[in-house]
Amino acid sequence: MFNILGNLLNLTTFGESHGLAYGGIINNFPAGLTVDFDKIQYELDRRKPGQSAIVTQRKESDTVKFLSGIFDGKTTGTPIGFIIENENQKSKDYDHIANSYRPSHADFTYDKKFGARDYRGGGKSSARETINWVVAGALAKQLLPDIEIKAYVSSVGDIFCEKPYQALDFSKIESNEIRCPDSETAEKMISRIKEIKKEGNTIGGTITCVIKNVPVGVGEPIFSKLQAELAKAMLNINACKGFEYGSGFCGAKMTGKEHNDLFNSDFSTQSNLSGGIQGGISNGMDIYFRVAFKPVATILRPQDSIDKEGNPVIVEGKGRHDPCVVPRAVPIVESLAAFVIADLFLINKTRNIHNW
Amino acid sequence: MFNILGNLLNLTTFGESHGLAYGGIINNFPAGLTVDFDKIQYELDRRKPGQSAIVTQRKESDTVKFLSGIFDGKTTGTPIGFIIENENQKSKDYDHIANSYRPSHADFTYDKKFGARDYRGGGKSSARETINWVVAGALAKQLLPDIEIKAYVSSVGDIFCEKPYQALDFSKIESNEIRCPDSETAEKMISRIKEIKKEGNTIGGTITCVIKNVPVGVGEPIFSKLQAELAKAMLNINACKGFEYGSGFCGAKMTGKEHNDLFNSDFSTQSNLSGGIQGGISNGMDIYFRVAFKPVATILRPQDSIDKEGNPVIVEGKGRHDPCVVPRAVPIVESLAAFVIADLFLINKTRNIHNW
Amino acid sequence: MFNILGNLLNLTTFGESHGLAYGGIINNFPAGLTVDFDKIQYELDRRKPGQSAIVTQRKESDTVKFLSGIFDGKTTGTPIGFIIENENQKSKDYDHIANSYRPSHADFTYDKKFGARDYRGGGKSSARETINWVVAGALAKQLLPDIEIKAYVSSVGDIFCEKPYQALDFSKIESNEIRCPDSETAEKMISRIKEIKKEGNTIGGTITCVIKNVPVGVGEPIFSKLQAELAKAMLNINACKGFEYGSGFCGAKMTGKEHNDLFNSDFSTQSNLSGGIQGGISNGMDIYFRVAFKPVATILRPQDSIDKEGNPVIVEGKGRHDPCVVPRAVPIVESLAAFVIADLFLINKTRNIHNW
Amino acid sequence: MFNILGNLLNLTTFGESHGLAYGGIINNFPAGLTVDFDKIQYELDRRKPGQSAIVTQRKESDTVKFLSGIFDGKTTGTPIGFIIENENQKSKDYDHIANSYRPSHADFTYDKKFGARDYRGGGKSSARETINWVVAGALAKQLLPDIEIKAYVSSVGDIFCEKPYQALDFSKIESNEIRCPDSETAEKMISRIKEIKKEGNTIGGTITCVIKNVPVGVGEPIFSKLQAELAKAMLNINACKGFEYGSGFCGAKMTGKEHNDLFNSDFSTQSNLSGGIQGGISNGMDIYFRVAFKPVATILRPQDSIDKEGNPVIVEGKGRHDPCVVPRAVPIVESLAAFVIADLFLINKTRNIHNW
Repeated sequence: MFNILGNLLNLTTFGESHGLAYGGIINNFPAGLTVDFDKIQYELDRRKPGQSAIVTQRKESDTVKFLSGIFDGKTTGTPIGFIIENENQKSKDYDHIANSYRPSHADFTYDKKFGARDYRGGGKSSARETINWVVAGALAKQLLPDIEIKAYVSSVGDIFCEKPYQALDFSKIESNEIRCPDSETAEKMISRIKEIKKEGNTIGGTITCVIKNVPVGVGEPIFSKLQAELAKAMLNINACKGFEYGSGFCGAKMTGKEHNDLFNSDFSTQSNLSGGIQGGISNGMDIYFRVAFKPVATILRPQDSIDKEGNPVIVEGKGRHDPCVVPRAVPIVESLAAFVIADLFLINKTRNIHNW
Repeated sequence: MFNILGNLLNLTTFGESHGLAYGGIINNFPAGLTVDFDKIQYELDRRKPGQSAIVTQRKESDTVKFLSGIFDGKTTGTPIGFIIENENQKSKDYDHIANSYRPSHADFTYDKKFGARDYRGGGKSSARETINWVVAGALAKQLLPDIEIKAYVSSVGDIFCEKPYQALDFSKIESNEIRCPDSETAEKMISRIKEIKKEGNTIGGTITCVIKNVPVGVGEPIFSKLQAELAKAMLNINACKGFEYGSGFCGAKMTGKEHNDLFNSDFSTQSNLSGGIQGGISNGMDIYFRVAFKPVATILRPQDSIDKEGNPVIVEGKGRHDPCVVPRAVPIVESLAAFVIADLFLINKTRNIHNW
Repeated sequence: MFNILGNLLNLTTFGESHGLAYGGIINNFPAGLTVDFDKIQYELDRRKPGQSAIVTQRKESDTVKFLSGIFDGKTTGTPIGFIIENENQKSKDYDHIANSYRPSHADFTYDKKFGARDYRGGGKSSARETINWVVAGALAKQLLPDIEIKAYVSSVGDIFCEKPYQALDFSKIESNEIRCPDSETAEKMISRIKEIKKEGNTIGGTITCVIKNVPVGVGEPIFSKLQAELAKAMLNINACKGFEYGSGFCGAKMTGKEHNDLFNSDFSTQSNLSGGIQGGISNGMDIYFRVAFKPVATILRPQDSIDKEGNPVIVEGKGRHDPCVVPRAVPIVESLAAFVIADLFLINKTRNIHNW
Repeated sequence: MFNILGNLLNLTTFGESHGLAYGGIINNFPAGLTVDFDKIQYELDRRKPGQSAIVTQRKESDTVKFLSGIFDGKTTGTPIGFIIENENQKSKDYDHIANSYRPSHADFTYDKKFGARDYRGGGKSSARETINWVVAGALAKQLLPDIEIKAYVSSVGDIFCEKPYQALDFSKIESNEIRCPDSETAEKMISRIKEIKKEGNTIGGTITCVIKNVPVGVGEPIFSKLQAELAKAMLNINACKGFEYGSGFCGAKMTGKEHNDLFNSDFSTQSNLSGGIQGGISNGMDIYFRVAFKPVATILRPQDSIDKEGNPVIVEGKGRHDPCVVPRAVPIVESLAAFVIADLFLINKTRNIHNW
């Protein structure tokens, strides 16, 4: 249904950038899981503003409070309500855009669709909404203890991590500010962002996500193919412009003979250009995909724009903004992937009477 | 919900490659539309096998029969049931794969998930399912008479249509077998496919889709962003490996200053790197996106594979198959786009009390 | 979602009384069930017109054809499409109501809502739609082999089956035309209906349904309570005016001391005024409920009515109609109950990690 | 979907009796409505414990805080998040039931389904959940300013308000503690409840709800008939045992000739035994229905019961409980009715292209 993430396991959310709070409700989360709250806070901290020199310097504690659905440290099977209170908003920073439309923001479209908008900090269109997703994803991860979901920054501007994911040491993702496990590339990315930031400019990038140990059979044949649910989730992230999995856009240049992914006798496959999915259903190999993010639209320079009546105005990027969205988007990508997998994992428990 | 396309306007489907029929039910289609049945058959004919030398030579009439929801030539507002009977199946062609797993097909994953599978022609995993989507999309197009949805083949293997879509004459899309409006590129693509076909091989490609005249306001802010619903629909197409819209993966290399899409005084924008969508909501500019398709997995050569027990077997690509999926996928991409837009267009009628 | 029965296991349907066919699609039906087609036809025969002297004398074979989702006699886990072709329609019988509104029918409301209607035989509003539900319910019953779902006629007009269900021999339900297991009451009911029929009149009645052996735990705590899903399904049946379960409306006259349902030491309960459900979740005791049906609106006498412009007309009940809906509604009630239980039974497989 | 109220307009909720807070998220509420917060608090006050001598003496302020979706006093079209903090819980009152199962409560079914339960105050199974529904319903009422939704207590035990609703003065509903507009009957009901309370017992009752001025056309033909959506909502209310609309169970005793609801020349009908709905769609006449509530299960007397192991225990009704649920359920019934109507009202804006 509109505006709900997931099907069986599902998430509804609320919150605006400068409202009182963000929060959400997770429906149909199974009972009996002992929740590790530190792990949830750990994921929130990875997304948090102010965590390093290359992200926005806003300071928010981003602490989640669970209001229901957990009793004596365990999930009860009833809806999990949670809330993250907003703090440190500087709404005054936004008075200048109450009547102006910032380029490449949602100001104009919200105004036209809804007749008005909460303009403070982008209101509902703010990427702060993703904080809700990280809470839900961190819980979903705990539901899937055997599945490993790791994302990393695979490019910033034209600096690419050229090594394939198999050649990378994922334990190093958190060892640098940009979350690229190749330290040499990471350094280049970081200095590129610092440069860009100094100019008051911003820059795009990509994130690669790898999911290991998904059992065979996760994904539904029609309209809920695993890759389709992943793509939908990713394209909902603010600034996301593209999704590809397995061979992706490169696969479109190949021939069948090159691309076909031959079986080994243990049912694993040889090239995994398939990206761990066949016919919308996981095949037991690594699932991997890549997500493109455009540069953040708010730049700290004057830009020509228009107001509500179409008159020319100059908008200035005030406030504290990210020069590049990808380091903070890493936990968001992982969280959405975890939630999507968990949803399809749950329905899969019902799909074959011989597995009951 | 799982396995349902759309939200308010929604489609459920059935059918397997060698079953008796395909078909579907369209729910909540508005009443009062005079249906142009020829236009629906026209779209089916564009998808049909056997229409040219570069597609599969199977012959099927692919005629849709409407069973309900239309009376006196007009939609009645009640569910539209339709059926397309299968013909010309050569199930014998598939006996050899009853116990074998073809590389890069869904044979293995279906067997593991469901315990068994209809192996004839791929059963449910066959791309013949898309015939249902074309019926639904052709109806959705008629619901949106002012909106123009045009897709074309933008690459085959490494042959790209280099011109931007604005430089192309869309009236020429149907003028050649490959459905590329640039006739010079089209010729190259066609000869590449003929070459590949002669080798018993297959090749991938991409499709670009452009949607004009979508009114401002179509798309929902959270989890049903217009691009997210489009991505989900596209990634459900067999062989689809990626989706990008607007600046797409290229946008990830750019800076904010380059990428920002400045307004004109009439609320149109200058670069439209945004791809006609801001914050998940259409902004009135052209919506455009690109979809990647891998090469068809069935090649007409012997391939090493395994059987259900993991023993080595040789599978041979029998049957009649497409050397390249993209020319026939053009109407599929358009159809899904039309359905997604129609669904979000309908809910938009309810979202603002001042528009009632 | 609107116009879909069920949640995880779900049914969408199509068909109008005088259209080409009825049919439906069952989504997410588990794989691996060996389908007993005779049992499905048996249920359709119980619902069929023309089966006895006290129901409509229309003759229809009401044969279902499965078009997908079943292979080698077993469900495949993919959507089950089915169709029942219409025959023996006498559309001419309905020309007289194309512009008139029959009292207590949906003619007026359909016309106002949708701007027009298929008036032949009531079109979409015809109770023939329930044929789809019987197919789906007959499959759902087979998914729940240990659960027994039995409905019977508990009243016709003011003739009530006074015995509680525990005192009845359910094996006698099919032993008479009215489907009341108490043969003495059955006779009275039958002669009452014959009388009414002779007058060209119709009469209402109630059906009681008893469901045994539902395991503890079926039903969801909020908004999908077992009784709520049952009530919704039943109130969708044409002519249904009410639903009560357990103590029902009588329970509203009782005190807590009388009504409370004390436990036995084996967790069974003593009075089962609860009706087998506590907090929306099955408690292992018999689930029982009662459904009220108004008299069929089509009577074979002239009635004063109006046409589309509000002018007075006389409408005559032509065609072949049921004098009392309840004997044929028995399998419909059972079918919907089976489908609702199966849906909640399936999700329950996912709700507690200790049961995986 | 499971555990979600509504379809297009939908509500998800959270909260347990002795958790930190209740709350919910309303999705797809239209933009542009000026919210009257006093009216929302007024409805909450009608539901509030401690408001009179015949309801529970718990004291809770029951104040709702809106966290999102409303800006400058108007709905923004984005999700409306709200919270009601719990206070005045006396969790100690419930320690005695941590291991015992109270008769006719959900203790046993929750434990079996979920493996454990929040036993304090009934946890999720507490009727305090309905506070969320009143918030959502109060907003839905404001969306439908021309529609009047009034519920009243029509029976307590065997004391019935014999007058038909047309003979009652609805402005008197709030003039007495029991919310029965017939003051003579109200007095009898109140003294009956006082009597029952003195005995430490409880008693059941019914509520009648009347909805005026619903435009013709609200309700969907299949599976979302107006009466079906109403029934589902009502049967989700704690203690609800039955639902009937229009002629209801009495209609099952009538003949077609008596029951048929003849048209007047202005398309109104004469008897309205139909209850304002034909074929699942509103016909412009008053919609009326009746809901049965069993007596509250918690009685202030010792009762025989069992513990988790099946050993005999005595449970004592401690805490502060309602002797009769119906006076406080009146705003709950109205709220759910308002929400259901609003949901179907919104989709109806999309169902006929001639009304766009």
